[in-house]
Amino acid sequence: MIIDCHGHYTTAPKALEDWRNRQIAGITDPAAMPRVAELRISDDELRESIEKNQLRLMQERGSDLTIFSPRASFMAHHIGDFAVSSTWASICNELCYRVSKLFPKNFVGAAMLPQSPGVDPKSCVPELEKCVKEYGFVAINLNPDPSGGHWNSPPLTDRHWYPIYERMVEYDIPAMIHVSTSCNPAFHTTGAHYINADTTAVMQLIQGDLFRDFPQLRFVIPHGGGAAPYHWGRYRGLAQELKRPVLREHLLNNVFFDTCVYHLPGIELMAKVIPVDNILFASEMLGAVKGVDPETGHNFDDTKRYIDKLDLRSSDKQKIFEGNARRVYPRLDRRLKSQQ
Amino acid sequence: MIIDCHGHYTTAPKALEDWRNRQIAGITDPAAMPRVAELRISDDELRESIEKNQLRLMQERGSDLTIFSPRASFMAHHIGDFAVSSTWASICNELCYRVSKLFPKNFVGAAMLPQSPGVDPKSCVPELEKCVKEYGFVAINLNPDPSGGHWNSPPLTDRHWYPIYERMVEYDIPAMIHVSTSCNPAFHTTGAHYINADTTAVMQLIQGDLFRDFPQLRFVIPHGGGAAPYHWGRYRGLAQELKRPVLREHLLNNVFFDTCVYHLPGIELMAKVIPVDNILFASEMLGAVKGVDPETGHNFDDTKRYIDKLDLRSSDKQKIFEGNARRVYPRLDRRLKSQQ
Repeated sequence: MIIDCHGHYTTAPKALEDWRNRQIAGITDPAAMPRVAELRISDDELRESIEKNQLRLMQERGSDLTIFSPRASFMAHHIGDFAVSSTWASICNELCYRVSKLFPKNFVGAAMLPQSPGVDPKSCVPELEKCVKEYGFVAINLNPDPSGGHWNSPPLTDRHWYPIYERMVEYDIPAMIHVSTSCNPAFHTTGAHYINADTTAVMQLIQGDLFRDFPQLRFVIPHGGGAAPYHWGRYRGLAQELKRPVLREHLLNNVFFDTCVYHLPGIELMAKVIPVDNILFASEMLGAVKGVDPETGHNFDDTKRYIDKLDLRSSDKQKIFEGNARRVYPRLDRRLKSQQ
Repeated sequence: MIIDCHGHYTTAPKALEDWRNRQIAGITDPAAMPRVAELRISDDELRESIEKNQLRLMQERGSDLTIFSPRASFMAHHIGDFAVSSTWASICNELCYRVSKLFPKNFVGAAMLPQSPGVDPKSCVPELEKCVKEYGFVAINLNPDPSGGHWNSPPLTDRHWYPIYERMVEYDIPAMIHVSTSCNPAFHTTGAHYINADTTAVMQLIQGDLFRDFPQLRFVIPHGGGAAPYHWGRYRGLAQELKRPVLREHLLNNVFFDTCVYHLPGIELMAKVIPVDNILFASEMLGAVKGVDPETGHNFDDTKRYIDKLDLRSSDKQKIFEGNARRVYPRLDRRLKSQQ
C-alpha cells in the first residue's frame, strides 16, 4: 500500500472559514464571538469535500492512505490567546477525526495543537491526549514558531518543549515539525516560512542533543527537509565543527524527511544523500502548489511520479511508500494490522 | 582563469577584533570608545594573514582571483547605531582595499555597507561610492535583515531599498544578498540564518516585480541559492500560481547563484536545474565550514573539485569559473582587461 504522511484538510467546507472569521472578530468584540455549536457541517458536506478533492487525487495517482491533519496555514497560532487556539484546534481536529471515520481506509488523523505564543506547551497536552485516545490519531504537528514568523520561541532542543515530547514518547507518536501562516511580510508562507522552518529545525537538532534525553522521539521534517539535503555537506561539516557525532548517528535514528519536493531532480538528490530508511512518501496535496508543471504536463505535487522514476530497488521504494511510515507511526501500523 | 566570487576576510589580524570589542564596549560607555587611529595593522600583518590562509588555499586548489569582502558574520549590523556601523564598515572595507592593493592579481574588493536597523538605506550611499570610486570595488554585500534574525525590514522588492539599487545601476555593480550573525537563538548563523536568508530573498523576488523597475539590477544569491534549486519545482509552481512569468524570464536575467554548496550531489542538482549562465564559482573560504569531509578526504569548501566532476562541456565550466563573473561584475572585467 502507499501511505502519504503529509496531507492537510485544505478543502473543508466554507462554513469552517466563516466560523473562524467570526472567532477572529470575537477577539476584539467579545459579543461577536461565536459558540462552537454554531458551526454545523454535515457528514455529506465532509464526504463531498474529500471525495471531490483529496480522495479523487489519491485514487488517480495511486496512494491509499493519508495521514491527515488540519490545514497548516489556518492553524495561525499567533491569532488570539490560548483560549482562541484551544477552541480552534479542537474544532479542526474533530473535523479530521470525522473524515477519518467516514473514510477509515483512506485517512487517519494527525493533531494540530492549541499552541499560543508565550504559553507553556504543557497547555497542549489535553488536546493531544484526546486526539490520540479518543480520535485514534497517530501523530501531531508541532509548530516551532507559534508567533508566525517572529521566531521568539526557544529552539526545539530546549526544555520548554519537553512536556510535549514526554507525551509523544508515552503514546509512541511522531511529530511533524510544521509552521503555519507567516504574519511577517519578509516571509512568504509556503515559499519561505515553511522551508526556512524545516531548515531551522534541522540545524537546531544538530546543535543540540535532544535525542540523548529522548532516544525514542521521532520528528518528520516536511517539504523534503527544507534546505537540509541540498546542503547535506554543509550540515555534515557543521556537525563535525560542533563536535557532534556524524549525522547518521546524531539525527537519523530520530529524524525523517518527507518527499514534498516538487520536481524530479530534488527527489533524486534526496534519495542520493538521505538513507532510504529516513524518507517518507508525502505530497501535501492539495497544498502549497496546486498547478500543472508545464515542463512535465503533470501536477507539481504528484510526487509519486518522481519516486516511481528513482533508480532504487523495489524493496527500497516500498520502504519509502509504506514500510518507513509504519515504523515511524507505530499506532498507524497497529491500526492497519487490526483492520486486516 | 578561475574567479571565486565569494570570499570574506575571515582571517584579519586579531587587532581588528580587539578594536571592535572596544567599539562595542564604547556603545554603553562612551569614554571607552576607541578612535579609528588606534587600530594599527601593518602591511606585513595583512600579507601574512592572507598568504598563510586564503592565498595559500587558492593556489593549492587552483583559483586565481577572489572577490573579497569583510567577514560577513562580523558585519553585525544590529550592534549599535548608524554611527557605529558606519565607522566599522569603513574600517573593514579599507582593510579589504589594502589587501586588494597588496595582491592586485588575487583580490578585488566588495563592500560591506553601514546598514543599521530602521535606518534609511540611503545612509549607505557615501560608503558605497567611496568603495567603488576610490577603492575600485566591484560589488557590494547587501544585508536583507540588518536586525540579525528578527526580519523586520521590508522585503527586497520594497522601495525602501531603491536608493541602494539606483547606485548599483549607476555604477554597474551587483549585490550579493548576505546576512550577518544571527542574534536570534532560533537561528544558527551559518546553518540556518544564512540559508534561510537566501531562500527568503529568492521568494521575495518571485513575489515582487523588482526587475521591471531595475532591468539592469543584478543579485548574487550565495550558498547555492539557499533552498531554491532543491525546491525549484516549488518555486516554478509558486511563480505560476502568483501569475508571474516563468522563472527564467522573471528572475534569471538578474539573479545568479554561487556554488557554495559543500558536497557533490548538491552541486550536481544545481547544475541540473539552474542554467549554466546563472551559476558563479565560489567557495566562501575560509568560511562557514572549515573541516575535511571524511567521505572524500577533501575540504568541504573545496568546491572547485565538485565542479570539475560535473558532466558539463568545458565551455560551460569556463562560464561558471570565469565568464559569468566577468559578465555579472563588469567592473571586474574592465579591470582584468586593463591589467593584461
